[in-house]
Amino acid sequence: MVTRVVEVSRSPFAIVTPVPIESVLVTGGFWGRWLGETLRYALFHQHRMLEESDRINRFRWVSGRAREPPSRSLAPFDDSDVYKWLEACGYFLARANDAEVRGIVESVIDEIVSAQEPDGYLFTAHHGQSSRRWRNLTFDHELYCAGHLIQAAIALHRSVGEDRLFSASIKLADLITRTFGPEGMAGVCGHPEIEMALIELYRETGVERYLREAAFFVDARGRGRLRPDPEDRLNSTLYQLLGGPEYFVDHAPVRELSEITGHAVRALYLNCGVTDLYIETGEEALMAAMERVWRNFVERKMYVTGAAGSRYISESFGIDYELPNERAYAETCAGVANFMWNWRMLLATGEARFADIMELALYNAILPGTSLDGSSYFYMNPLESSGGYLREPWFRCACCPPNVARLLASLPGYLYGVSDGGVWIHLYCSSRASLVLDDAEVKITQETDYPWNGSVKVLVEPEQPSTFSLFLRIPGWSVGSRVKVDGRMLAPRGPYYLEVRKRWHSPSVVKITLPVKPRLVASHPYVRDNFSKAAIHRGPLIYCLESIDNPVDPREIVLARRAVMVERRKRDLLGGVVALKIGAHALDTGVLGPRLYIDLEKYPHARRRIRALAIPYYAWANRGPSKMVIWVPVADFFTSGGNRRRARS
Amino acid sequence: MVTRVVEVSRSPFAIVTPVPIESVLVTGGFWGRWLGETLRYALFHQHRMLEESDRINRFRWVSGRAREPPSRSLAPFDDSDVYKWLEACGYFLARANDAEVRGIVESVIDEIVSAQEPDGYLFTAHHGQSSRRWRNLTFDHELYCAGHLIQAAIALHRSVGEDRLFSASIKLADLITRTFGPEGMAGVCGHPEIEMALIELYRETGVERYLREAAFFVDARGRGRLRPDPEDRLNSTLYQLLGGPEYFVDHAPVRELSEITGHAVRALYLNCGVTDLYIETGEEALMAAMERVWRNFVERKMYVTGAAGSRYISESFGIDYELPNERAYAETCAGVANFMWNWRMLLATGEARFADIMELALYNAILPGTSLDGSSYFYMNPLESSGGYLREPWFRCACCPPNVARLLASLPGYLYGVSDGGVWIHLYCSSRASLVLDDAEVKITQETDYPWNGSVKVLVEPEQPSTFSLFLRIPGWSVGSRVKVDGRMLAPRGPYYLEVRKRWHSPSVVKITLPVKPRLVASHPYVRDNFSKAAIHRGPLIYCLESIDNPVDPREIVLARRAVMVERRKRDLLGGVVALKIGAHALDTGVLGPRLYIDLEKYPHARRRIRALAIPYYAWANRGPSKMVIWVPVADFFTSGGNRRRARS
Repeated sequence: MVTRVVEVSRSPFAIVTPVPIESVLVTGGFWGRWLGETLRYALFHQHRMLEESDRINRFRWVSGRAREPPSRSLAPFDDSDVYKWLEACGYFLARANDAEVRGIVESVIDEIVSAQEPDGYLFTAHHGQSSRRWRNLTFDHELYCAGHLIQAAIALHRSVGEDRLFSASIKLADLITRTFGPEGMAGVCGHPEIEMALIELYRETGVERYLREAAFFVDARGRGRLRPDPEDRLNSTLYQLLGGPEYFVDHAPVRELSEITGHAVRALYLNCGVTDLYIETGEEALMAAMERVWRNFVERKMYVTGAAGSRYISESFGIDYELPNERAYAETCAGVANFMWNWRMLLATGEARFADIMELALYNAILPGTSLDGSSYFYMNPLESSGGYLREPWFRCACCPPNVARLLASLPGYLYGVSDGGVWIHLYCSSRASLVLDDAEVKITQETDYPWNGSVKVLVEPEQPSTFSLFLRIPGWSVGSRVKVDGRMLAPRGPYYLEVRKRWHSPSVVKITLPVKPRLVASHPYVRDNFSKAAIHRGPLIYCLESIDNPVDPREIVLARRAVMVERRKRDLLGGVVALKIGAHALDTGVLGPRLYIDLEKYPHARRRIRALAIPYYAWANRGPSKMVIWVPVADFFTSGGNRRRARS
Repeated sequence: MVTRVVEVSRSPFAIVTPVPIESVLVTGGFWGRWLGETLRYALFHQHRMLEESDRINRFRWVSGRAREPPSRSLAPFDDSDVYKWLEACGYFLARANDAEVRGIVESVIDEIVSAQEPDGYLFTAHHGQSSRRWRNLTFDHELYCAGHLIQAAIALHRSVGEDRLFSASIKLADLITRTFGPEGMAGVCGHPEIEMALIELYRETGVERYLREAAFFVDARGRGRLRPDPEDRLNSTLYQLLGGPEYFVDHAPVRELSEITGHAVRALYLNCGVTDLYIETGEEALMAAMERVWRNFVERKMYVTGAAGSRYISESFGIDYELPNERAYAETCAGVANFMWNWRMLLATGEARFADIMELALYNAILPGTSLDGSSYFYMNPLESSGGYLREPWFRCACCPPNVARLLASLPGYLYGVSDGGVWIHLYCSSRASLVLDDAEVKITQETDYPWNGSVKVLVEPEQPSTFSLFLRIPGWSVGSRVKVDGRMLAPRGPYYLEVRKRWHSPSVVKITLPVKPRLVASHPYVRDNFSKAAIHRGPLIYCLESIDNPVDPREIVLARRAVMVERRKRDLLGGVVALKIGAHALDTGVLGPRLYIDLEKYPHARRRIRALAIPYYAWANRGPSKMVIWVPVADFFTSGGNRRRARS
C-alpha cells in the first residue's frame, strides 16, 4: 500500500514528493510515545466520544438503524468529526496492522455508507429534506463535510484498500460535479475544504473532472456569493457579527488576495486547496497570491508558536500585529491547517522556510492541543493564562480532537521527501525510512534525541552505490549549525536545505549538529502585548513558565537579557522534557496594593532573586489548573548594564 | 424651575444633593465652548440624523402620520435614541431659553405622544402586535426604552415644565407597574435602565409604587429569568455568543455580586439603579454589593481613561486585568454610564474617590466620543490605533451620540453639591453658582483655567455672614496640593474632600493649587499590554502621541523615566490645548526588516533622539486618520541609570 497525505508523484509542478507512511518507522525518541500507544488510546477515546455524542448515531438514524433519535446536534458539520477520525484511523492502519482499530473502522464505515441517499447525497443534518440541499452554502458546511468524507475515504483506500467508503465518496463527488459548475449552480462553500479534497480525489483516480471542479470552486470564491438569505435573521446576524465577506475569504478573488483575513481555519484550508491547484496547474497567479498571503501571515499575524487566529467568537485573524496572548484564539485546528498549508507550499517549492513553519506549528500549535495522554484537548491555545484553563475530553463543537489525531497519525509521512535525483529530510526524528529513488531503494536512518538534543546521525544506505543529493533541512532558528560529511565540516545557515551531492556507498554517515541552546526572542514592537518581553526558544520548542513550577505568579517574573538558563533533562517530568532553570527576579507586587494604576516612580522594582523553571509550552496544563506565560518581561530590554557592548551589537 | 439629573433632596440616604442646572453658569474656560455653540450644534445635527435615519418617522408611522413606511430599523431600541436626545434638550433648555430648540422638541414630543397606544404602551418596534409585547424581554429592550422615555420626560418636566411627554411617560410607567410585579409578570429587562428611571419618577411624583417597581426589577435580576426562547435560534445563538447570563448580569442576584461582568453599559446602568435604590432605602446589602463591584471594576477592569468594556462583539468586560488597548471596546456610552454610576455613589457617600472616577471618565472616556465640533462620534474608544479610525456623523446603532449630548448638557448640574451645613465643589470649572443652604443663598464663583492650569480661585459670597463648610475636592492624582484660606495654607492629600468650616463673610476667597505637572503612570503588571510602558497624565487629562504630531510612527517612540516634558499652551491647536514637547527616542525598526520575531540580541535599540509631541487624548483623531498610542514604552522601566537612587524610592 502507498499512503501519502498529499500524492503529488505525478503532479507536474511539485518539486518534492512525500514518501509513503508505510515506508517510515518512527523508532522511539520524542515522537515514539506520541505515535504509539498514546495515539491508539486517543483513537479509541475519540470513537467513544463520537458514539456518546450521537455523531455516529446520526448516520444510524438516517439509515433507519437507530432505535432512538439522536440528540440534537449543535452544528451541521458534526459529520466531519466522524470523517476526520476515520482519516486518522486510515493513517494509523498504514503502519499498524491493528485488528481492533480495523474493526471499529469497518463498523463506522458501515453506518456511513448505509446513510447515503440513492443519488449520492450524504449529510445527516439535511437527510430527507431535499429542499434544504445546497440552499445555505454560506453556513451549512455540506461541501465541507463532503471534503472530509473524501479525504477519509482516500486515506483508507490508500492504506488498507478500503472500497466501500471510497465508492461512497466518489458517488458524492460525482453528485457535486453534476450540481456545481459552469453549467450548474454557481455556489461555493462557506468553509473551504472541498477544494483540496477534490484535487486529492483527482490524484487518486486520475479523473480530471474533480480537478476542474476544485478549480471552479477556487474561481467562484471572492465574488460575494457567500451571503446569508436576508430573510434569515439568524444567519444575517451571524454573518454581520462574524465579519461579513472577509470572514469567509469572499471579499476578493483568490488571485487578488494580499492579506490573510477572516476565520483562520477557513483561510488556511482555502490556501491548501489553492496551493494544490497550483501544484497541478502551475498557474503563477495562484502561487503569487499564496506568497503574498503567506508573507502577511508569517510577518504580521502568526503567533510565535505558529498558532493562528487572534479573535474570539469569529475565530479569526485580526489586523496586522494584533496578537493578544491570553485572549489568543489559536485554535488547534488552525495549527493543523497551518501545517497542512506549509506542507503544500514546501512540496510546491522545496523551500525550507515552509518546513520551518511546519515544525514550529507541529511542536507549539498542534501538540499543545492534546494532553500528554491523548485523552483531553484544547480548542483554544492561549499563550498566557491567569489560571483555570484546562483541556477537555470532548467538545460540543469537536473539530479539534480528530484533527490532531489525523495529523499525528500521518506524521511519519512528513519526515522525508523525494525529488528528481534527491532525497530530503524535512523533520528530524528517530526513524528508519525506505525510500525509492530512480527505482532503487535508499534506506535512511536517523538516530537522534531531537528536539531535546540537536545532534542527528543520519545513516544513508543505498541498495547500490549511486550518486544523488541528500537535502538536509537547516532550520532558521539554528545558529552555528554543523554538518559533517566524509570528514568535511559544513556550516550552513538556515532556513535552508543543504544539498549534499555525492556518490553514496552503503552505509554512509552524515552527522548534523543543530545547536539547541536556549535563546530569547523578541517580537516586532507593533505587537504591543509583547513589548519589552522575550519568549524562550530552545531548538524548535517554545518554552513557558507555569505557576506549578515557580515560586511566584509567572506574571511577576522578570528576566535579564543575560539570564543564566541551565538545561536539565528531566525524565520524570511531563513524559520526559528538558526543563530550564533560570536565574530571574520577581516583582514585589505587594507594593502596588490593590491599585491598577500607579505613578511610575512608585512602581515596584524587580530585585528579589528567584529561580524560575521553564517547560516546553506543549506540555503545559497537564498538572491541573495553572497560570502560565510565554512572553516574559526583560528588565534590561533596552539598557543592558554590564553587557552593554554586546547587547548593543 | 429646578432641574437636577438625580433629585435626592428628599432621599433619606443621600449625603450630598446636586444643585439645579439652572443655578450654575459655566463662564467660559475649558467647558464654555463645549457647552455653548458646540452642544447646540450637536443637538441640531443629531435631530437631523434622527430624522434621516427614520427614527422619528417610526413614531409618525405608528400614529398614522407618515406617508411612507420608515426604513427597516436595525434594532428594537431605536426609540431610545430619540428619548436620549430629548433628555439632552431638556437639560440644555434648563439654561438656554432657545426658541428654536424648544420648537423641534415640541414637534418631536408631538410625534411621540401621538404614537402611544391607548393603554400606555409605547414601543414602535412592536406597535400593533400586542402578541409580541413583553415576550422577549431578554433582547427586545421595551423596558429599556420606557426608562429612557421616563428620563427624558422628567428632564423636560423639570426644566421647562413640559407636561405632555411627562403624562405619556406616567401612563407607560403605570402600564409597567400593572404588568410586572409580585402579582404580575416576573420578568426583567435584558438591558437595565428602567430601574433608575422609575426611581427618578418616584422622586419626581412621590408615588411609591414606582420605587417598589424598581426594587422589584432589582430583586428579579440574577435569577436566570433572562433566557432566550429555545425555539428562537437567532436569540439562542446570540445569547450563547454574547456570554450567557453574565452578559445580562443575570448570573447572580444583585446583592451577591462581587465582580463587574458582562455588557459594560448594562452592568453600569444596573449599578445606577441599585445605587439609587440604596439612596432611597438605605439597605446595606445593596451598598456592600456596589462597593465590591466598584472595587473589582476600578482595581481590575477599568481603562486608565476611565473607559469600560474590553471585548468586541459582546461589548463587555473581560476577566481581571484584560485591558487590550487597540482592541479596547471602551464604548462611549459605557464612559457615560461610568460617570452616572460614580455620581450616584458620590451622592450616597460623599467620598471623593467616586468624584475622581467621574472626572477621569468625563475628560478621557466621554469627551473623546465626540469630535471637537460636535458633529461626529466614536462608538468605540481605542487606547491605541494603527491608523484609519475616525469619528462618524451617526451610527446604525446610534446610542452614543445622544448619550454624550445628554451628559454634556447636564454638566453644570454636576459641578456643585449641597449637604447639611455644607456646600461642595466636585469639579473645577470656570463658573458661577447660586446655591441654597439652609434657605439662604450662597454664591460660589470659580475662576480658573482648569484643567490646563491647576490654580482655582473660589469666591464664596453668602447672602449673610454665616457658618458652614466648604467641601473642596482634592483629586487623587494631585501631589502637593495647596489650599489657601484666610492666609492659612493647607496641604491636603487626595482623593479627599477638604472641609473648610468657618464663618464666611462676603466675599471670601479660597485659593486652590492642584499641581498639574505631567507625570508618568504605570499599570499593574498583570495588564500585559501595558507592561514596562507608561501613560502620560497631566491633571485629570490622559495624553497620547498621535502620528500627525510626531516624526515617527508613535508605536516606535520610547520614553525615559526622566523624560523632559515641556508644557506648551497652544491656543491654535485643537481648540486650544496644553501640548507636551517630550525628549524621546525612536526605535530603528528598519533593522527588523519584515520579521515579526527576532533574536533579542538583534533587537534594535532606541538611540535616535526625537522630539515627540503629546496631546490630550480627548482631542485625537480630529485632523484626519492617524496612528495613536497612550501607553508608551519606557526604556529604563526597571533600570534607571544615573537616577537610580531616586527611581528606586
